[in-house]
Amino acid sequence: MPRTTTGAKDRIIASAVKLLRQGGLASAGLNDVLMDAQAPRGSLYHYFPRGKGQMVEEALQSYRDLVAAQLTDALSPGKSLDARIDTLFDNVGRRLAATEFLESCAVGAVALDLRGGDDLLRTACQSILDQWAHVAAECFTELPSRNRATAGRTLVAVLEGAQLMARAHRNDGPLREAAGVFKAYVHSLRP
Amino acid sequence: MPRTTTGAKDRIIASAVKLLRQGGLASAGLNDVLMDAQAPRGSLYHYFPRGKGQMVEEALQSYRDLVAAQLTDALSPGKSLDARIDTLFDNVGRRLAATEFLESCAVGAVALDLRGGDDLLRTACQSILDQWAHVAAECFTELPSRNRATAGRTLVAVLEGAQLMARAHRNDGPLREAAGVFKAYVHSLRP
Repeated sequence: MPRTTTGAKDRIIASAVKLLRQGGLASAGLNDVLMDAQAPRGSLYHYFPRGKGQMVEEALQSYRDLVAAQLTDALSPGKSLDARIDTLFDNVGRRLAATEFLESCAVGAVALDLRGGDDLLRTACQSILDQWAHVAAECFTELPSRNRATAGRTLVAVLEGAQLMARAHRNDGPLREAAGVFKAYVHSLRP
Repeated sequence: MPRTTTGAKDRIIASAVKLLRQGGLASAGLNDVLMDAQAPRGSLYHYFPRGKGQMVEEALQSYRDLVAAQLTDALSPGKSLDARIDTLFDNVGRRLAATEFLESCAVGAVALDLRGGDDLLRTACQSILDQWAHVAAECFTELPSRNRATAGRTLVAVLEGAQLMARAHRNDGPLREAAGVFKAYVHSLRP
């Protein structure tokens, strides 16, 4: 049975996200994505008439929503703040390990590839990182409200740095260590 | 006057470091480096007979030594620990701003490009990040010795994450914020 065209778009987005997570913009060339998605060339121009920029933009939006949901799942009030932070870093570490530490944050990888003319793409990265920070901040209900925004931004920066370290070390030690550090930091903010 | 061949090697290394900082492995193709260095093609094969891998390896070693010296300069005991941490993050922010936030850590950019077969390169990244962490740890003389290694590794992870955020935001706010967070973390370790 031939694959449906709706399926082709979803596969292209999923492949683009995977390749961006592996190696940023240079890894997500149109040919690489088509090959990974096993999609016909025509489907690419059909769904992304503006070309690679549009495909990357939609892939990043899809990744943004996925990570925002993962942040909400792990951090929403219920258990203690420490337990929620541990859950989040454990989950990120487990997802990295499942790819043999070869796929980390798509936005982080793109941010380190930005060139001078990439202002639309840079703004997209900035906006996604800000949204994740906001999602996290809203979950930090134990913290004084004046500290929540900083804590959310710090969480995102620490997660990005720890994923980078985990890739270089090919183990989740940096994520476990970062969880401890972030908990100590958050304790220093608590009333 | 013709440029000397010693000059050509230095220029090739400097260009490779610059291009790695801009966009990781994909930005530092042999042709890109030759063009940036204004070096004759023959000099590349003369100095790096094993090709791109050798050039990248030597570029990363050169960058490793540069950053290790910058860490030592900023963090060596003399002023208060808070003042030394501020100096370090200020310096990193100033260097990023000088490149319009287009050149961050070469090792961080390469780490997010690693593929399954890149084990030599991955080990090089791991070793450099570990060396920087060790250099920083040695400077944290105010901290209990059992906490210094973790503090050194945390500093490196936080610096990597903050540089990534600064590139996406095109400003040094993430570095200033990270300095505050790292100081709060370090205070939580002090006896």
